[in-house]
Amino acid sequence: MLPYPTKVYLDDKILDQEDAKISVFDRGFLFGDGIYEVMVQIDGKMFLGKEHLDRLEECLRKIDISFNVESIDNKISDLLKASKLTNKDCLVYIQVTRGTAPRKHAFPENIEPTFMMYAVPISLPEVNEIHASVITVPDFRWTRCDIKMTSLLGNVMANTDAFRQGAYEALLVRDGKITEASHSNVFFVKDKVVYTHPANEFILDGITRKSVLKLCKDLGIEVQEKAIDQDEIAHLDEAFLTGTTTQVASIRKIDDHELYQNGNTGPITKALQTAFLQLRRQSEPILTN
Amino acid sequence: MLPYPTKVYLDDKILDQEDAKISVFDRGFLFGDGIYEVMVQIDGKMFLGKEHLDRLEECLRKIDISFNVESIDNKISDLLKASKLTNKDCLVYIQVTRGTAPRKHAFPENIEPTFMMYAVPISLPEVNEIHASVITVPDFRWTRCDIKMTSLLGNVMANTDAFRQGAYEALLVRDGKITEASHSNVFFVKDKVVYTHPANEFILDGITRKSVLKLCKDLGIEVQEKAIDQDEIAHLDEAFLTGTTTQVASIRKIDDHELYQNGNTGPITKALQTAFLQLRRQSEPILTN
Repeated sequence: MLPYPTKVYLDDKILDQEDAKISVFDRGFLFGDGIYEVMVQIDGKMFLGKEHLDRLEECLRKIDISFNVESIDNKISDLLKASKLTNKDCLVYIQVTRGTAPRKHAFPENIEPTFMMYAVPISLPEVNEIHASVITVPDFRWTRCDIKMTSLLGNVMANTDAFRQGAYEALLVRDGKITEASHSNVFFVKDKVVYTHPANEFILDGITRKSVLKLCKDLGIEVQEKAIDQDEIAHLDEAFLTGTTTQVASIRKIDDHELYQNGNTGPITKALQTAFLQLRRQSEPILTN
Repeated sequence: MLPYPTKVYLDDKILDQEDAKISVFDRGFLFGDGIYEVMVQIDGKMFLGKEHLDRLEECLRKIDISFNVESIDNKISDLLKASKLTNKDCLVYIQVTRGTAPRKHAFPENIEPTFMMYAVPISLPEVNEIHASVITVPDFRWTRCDIKMTSLLGNVMANTDAFRQGAYEALLVRDGKITEASHSNVFFVKDKVVYTHPANEFILDGITRKSVLKLCKDLGIEVQEKAIDQDEIAHLDEAFLTGTTTQVASIRKIDDHELYQNGNTGPITKALQTAFLQLRRQSEPILTN
């Protein structure tokens, strides 16, 4: 089992993990009524931190939670200090829920959002180290996947299916089309064209997804934001997952279809992995820890 | 705002509401990874209590949470005593989450579920008192609505739409068909036939829904478990909502379409309301408070 973090930022206090408790009437607990973000600090830099905080703000706005996201920057610095993770490679998890109120479905007025954040050390695998085997499962989630909410049971069930079958991830199939994975986006390559599902209400528009789209442009690789049919899997040349901790992870096998053997990642995936690593190394710190 | 309950049953303790706190690492808070039930005690009897606990058990099984539901019976008695609600009309809310673990999507092994329960006084409206105005909204929830889970953001958003428009409930429309409402089931009457969406993965098979289907049979009313198109609304004779606290609530208006005026509930809705009240009065206590 993963370790717990040592410290948790809860509302305006940094607490020992064991003391970080919320009311059972927090709407995060009763209704999954909250938004979250995950970002990573690598080589002393919060990678694409501004993009993550911007998305948090956008998602909070989509579900009418009023919270000052700008206040988070300083809080991250304080949390990392308290967690002894200043300048260390780590993952920062942030969750904002609507707050605490007697149970009633409709959004209550005039309650204070709950803010929760923690950091744990990570050591990300080398970007070219993963040769993922993935499975396909039905996408039975809601159709507002553009909102990064904590009502995640659908994602959790799909991910558990993958885990139990020894797979790295589960690709989700809605109406015959592959949307994304249980906690990452997915890209395909066919005849030197890169395909990924358009950023609409069926997927979360990942920060790493956006970076990869930009890298394709920089590298002169043709991209089509177009969903791939499950039936087309057997005819693909390459496939890869993207995500904040997933980075750019090569897919070796989808269900029974093997895309390559012996760690022989396809050329476009490899080029994007290399470009992604360069991007990561160039990124500027947004925080002065 | 509704009042908080005075007491909360949390795991194996009855606590003052203010002290009922859970870890921020409870998967109910991080992932909406839990199941809930709502039941009512009326006239000193826990109405259809066994059916509610059976459904709780079934839903927990569907998402692989292992929890001894049989233990709840005695806990309800103790909670009602501590809450000074023995034999009083009240609502009992029960929630079981997968438990507490460091954050990772896939179900962790060997963790203890979290059990939370509280009771609050209610005074249900007379069954014939409601003449509900409802709106239709898109049903963008997941397609495992047969699971009564706490990942409820979709329901909460639909209910908030209704609340903000001064409506009693929101009817959910998926692919042109009315599935159910944000926290109740919906029935329609046309040419003396009662219609309701079949109990599949698009709706929660409500306990009151099942009672009403049985009452239709007893009363010799023809029923078709068949979804009604949104386009058919203008041609309906009657409509009503069912639910544990909703009971059998007559619908007066759907969007701009008025079904009746001046509290003039249709004859089949009225017959079912009367039969439902009789059923409630006949019901035997399942608990010895």
